[in-house]
Amino acid sequence: MPTNPAPRAYQVVLEAIEADLRSGRLLLGDQLPGERALAEKHGISRASVRDAIRILDVMGVVRTSTGSGPNSGAVIISNPAAGLSQALRLHVASKGIQVREIVESRILLETWAAQMEPRDRAYAQHVIDRTAVLIMRMDDPQLSREEFHRIDAEFHVLLSSMAGNAVVEAMMESLRHSISDYVSAAIPDDESWQPIVKVLRRQHKAIHRAFASGNRERAAHMLEEHITWFYNQTRF
Amino acid sequence: MPTNPAPRAYQVVLEAIEADLRSGRLLLGDQLPGERALAEKHGISRASVRDAIRILDVMGVVRTSTGSGPNSGAVIISNPAAGLSQALRLHVASKGIQVREIVESRILLETWAAQMEPRDRAYAQHVIDRTAVLIMRMDDPQLSREEFHRIDAEFHVLLSSMAGNAVVEAMMESLRHSISDYVSAAIPDDESWQPIVKVLRRQHKAIHRAFASGNRERAAHMLEEHITWFYNQTRF
Repeated sequence: MPTNPAPRAYQVVLEAIEADLRSGRLLLGDQLPGERALAEKHGISRASVRDAIRILDVMGVVRTSTGSGPNSGAVIISNPAAGLSQALRLHVASKGIQVREIVESRILLETWAAQMEPRDRAYAQHVIDRTAVLIMRMDDPQLSREEFHRIDAEFHVLLSSMAGNAVVEAMMESLRHSISDYVSAAIPDDESWQPIVKVLRRQHKAIHRAFASGNRERAAHMLEEHITWFYNQTRF
Repeated sequence: MPTNPAPRAYQVVLEAIEADLRSGRLLLGDQLPGERALAEKHGISRASVRDAIRILDVMGVVRTSTGSGPNSGAVIISNPAAGLSQALRLHVASKGIQVREIVESRILLETWAAQMEPRDRAYAQHVIDRTAVLIMRMDDPQLSREEFHRIDAEFHVLLSSMAGNAVVEAMMESLRHSISDYVSAAIPDDESWQPIVKVLRRQHKAIHRAFASGNRERAAHMLEEHITWFYNQTRF
């Protein structure tokens, strides 16, 4: 099997696609040209084009589907959280980033988002309603721990989305994903989990009340307490 | 040319390497096993192994070198800013993220970092000394604009590194890179650049004085004014 003849050839395609996105020649929802067309246009191999598309996929810039036909191929999406999340998780794993730094960053982003005046009042009301539903679902004693963590994450990400900043939202989402495995590993059995989940439910309700009544200062303060308290339970 | 038989086969390798990093079986500076060994271990093609390594490279988790010999192959590094930066830039280009959101995030991260008590006083002093040198270099009237932007970015990233949080530092660095091209495009000629650079130099010096005298509240306030002022110049 030949080794890759030009290890960075895919960069040419990444840069061209970035330029096309910026100029508006490519828009969200558009389909990328086919492999063959991209390879000919940039004078590189089809293998290098595939490399570039795979990287765009991992970064959440395109969605690829397998198979052939008119709906196959790569479509431009924008899912910033996906790409950032995978990179952050790997850097946490390699100890380039410590859990303390993640917790500090979560507090920074969530309390900032809580204190911002919502950019869109109707959307903010939607979030208040939606998170009330999530709180009720987290009350279900039959809920698996995994499912609880998933809904918990959605609760926090939704609340911070009220501030209307996609960068902050993407960073938030990636931070939560990047440490969820550590959190699960740190609370090994159901016996230690039960008293913790009781406190979490109470804290979520109090946070929700503060948001619903528009007391944003208080909401920020309670979020900080909640995050700090939880990570203290998972330290070993 | 065959199409890729298993589009997500590389995920197996990414997950295995993440697990090895987390358990400490792989450490910073270690060399990854060779392509052939990884392919056999995971029962996937060497092409899929190469895909995984390329993705790790783009994410700043490994550094690959071309050629053969004992020093070739992929070495574990941890450069969180590299991977995050490329993803953010692409999402800014696809309009998934607006420049307003980047500016807001920069202000959030930089003012937070400025107000934190430095974790390491000797390092903080090193940053004060080093940024003084950068300020002197930015005074050079012969400096190209491109070089000015590069030193300017280093100045801001160094100041925020005093807070000792690698996540915040990585986010900061990626935010700056993600918009540098927009900034350059927004100030088209030297005539419009000259009055702007004069103000930037003065602002940098005042920010540095606030840091050097330990007036962190004032440093944070001036950083916010500086960033806001600059982006107002580049709006068109």
